Amino acid sequence: MTLAELSLKEYLVEQTKLIDQELDRLVPAEDVAPSTIHKAMRYSLFAGGKRIRPILCLEAARSIAGHDVEGAVTVACPLELIHTYSLIHDDLPALDNDDLRRGRPTSHKVFGEAMAILAGDSLLTFAFEVLGRLGNARLVAELASASGTVRGMIAGQVHDIEGENQAPTAELLDQIHRAKTGALLRCSLRLGAIHAGATEDQLASISAYGEHIGLAFQIVDDILDVTQTSEELGKTAGKDAEQHKITFPAVYGLDASQHMAEEQRGLAHAALEQFGGSARRLHELADLIVDRNS
Amino acid sequence: MTLAELSLKEYLVEQTKLIDQELDRLVPAEDVAPSTIHKAMRYSLFAGGKRIRPILCLEAARSIAGHDVEGAVTVACPLELIHTYSLIHDDLPALDNDDLRRGRPTSHKVFGEAMAILAGDSLLTFAFEVLGRLGNARLVAELASASGTVRGMIAGQVHDIEGENQAPTAELLDQIHRAKTGALLRCSLRLGAIHAGATEDQLASISAYGEHIGLAFQIVDDILDVTQTSEELGKTAGKDAEQHKITFPAVYGLDASQHMAEEQRGLAHAALEQFGGSARRLHELADLIVDRNS
Repeated sequence: MTLAELSLKEYLVEQTKLIDQELDRLVPAEDVAPSTIHKAMRYSLFAGGKRIRPILCLEAARSIAGHDVEGAVTVACPLELIHTYSLIHDDLPALDNDDLRRGRPTSHKVFGEAMAILAGDSLLTFAFEVLGRLGNARLVAELASASGTVRGMIAGQVHDIEGENQAPTAELLDQIHRAKTGALLRCSLRLGAIHAGATEDQLASISAYGEHIGLAFQIVDDILDVTQTSEELGKTAGKDAEQHKITFPAVYGLDASQHMAEEQRGLAHAALEQFGGSARRLHELADLIVDRNS
Repeated sequence: MTLAELSLKEYLVEQTKLIDQELDRLVPAEDVAPSTIHKAMRYSLFAGGKRIRPILCLEAARSIAGHDVEGAVTVACPLELIHTYSLIHDDLPALDNDDLRRGRPTSHKVFGEAMAILAGDSLLTFAFEVLGRLGNARLVAELASASGTVRGMIAGQVHDIEGENQAPTAELLDQIHRAKTGALLRCSLRLGAIHAGATEDQLASISAYGEHIGLAFQIVDDILDVTQTSEELGKTAGKDAEQHKITFPAVYGLDASQHMAEEQRGLAHAALEQFGGSARRLHELADLIVDRNS
């Protein structure tokens, strides 16, 4: 059976396997000295993550090229390394102080705070080692910018921390989420598209799709934090309200938030028009992001 | 007066100014939102560091090319960004728990632990953004590897943490310091040399010089921690013994350590033979590293 013939569920299992194999190939084995740090990196990296960023990267490349692009799975892996580093550092006592992540104890609960800080640093550093070895410096600059302090992931985290106990305004919410989740999701798609040789016009469409699903992703995340239990989520639910985080439900209410997610879904589909059938999985992934319940 | 005519002291002042200007140009200004993170990055970055790594990078480029190489000062800056990130994270309560660095309160004492963790992450990320924008992916891979977990800086930190309260063996000491300080110093020289178009033979000599001064640097650092006061060092003295760190004086004693530093100095000078007069400052820097008292 070809990839195209698989159901979405089967396809996701296949793609997750593909990415996990490549991550396993890239990241130093647990017995490479000093082994504690490699154990800690792998503990968080192989904790059942959904690999949504690498999968988006692979599909962006396929949408552009119309087929699998050599090396795309390697390009995809640093996105998961960056995402995982951000989770480890976010969970630290000084930040969100979370004991539970994907249903398992967080890195600092298992390895101690010092090693969790270093494990995050290591995954971040290794992401750039992988991209550097591939030889395309533009991908490095794109990933660093999307992870960075101006309009990237760290900007979002800082806005988020500073936003606690501030009045939840629409403007602040937009700043937080465009940076915190949106930048890396958008970057996931851009890396795949650039690697596949996208034209500027194609890259713009792929980026627009990325922005819309990024916003949808965050809106749904905020909604689930209110409506689901910790067990359903595999992480502590209700933390946003407890920490007075600025979320979509807090600013707009649940109903309007749901409506906004639907609107972003529609815009995401529309952004893919020029790619026709080769963007089929990106269409399905947009739906998956909005319709998920964990 | 040309750079060559300056005394070593004047030369170091000039070079520090050059690098500080470039860092200031590269790093987002304090008023760029979110401003807290840019303040925290700049607080630690402009804290009177001696810029030894960027200067080594510049001089390696000059040794190869025989003159100033365009863009070398930009290549040099990520080395200081990485070094500064490592200091911020090293000083955290979960790691070395240091309140004082270069005579000033450490990042987490001023900005809080959450922001100090993020400031380190930011400097690390930004280092790769700068190198990525320059367009040479090999430099990215070299810097990431030298900062990483296998034979790089993080490997050294992990060996260091795990070595506390272990028997101080020569083998463990070698592992720690080759990785912890040596890898990044060696990399500083390699980035400059690669940027200047070094042949493999030239790169090997520059790397050998880097290994010898790296080892000398760490031996002297360990000696100073025993022989100097906190005031003289601008950081807490005597921490190594207090934390039962594996140091050169702990393994070999003070006299033998001093002798080893001298030996490395000699090997460093010898490694520069093929570069003749264009490596004059590298010779002077080797002497400076061994003869410093802070």
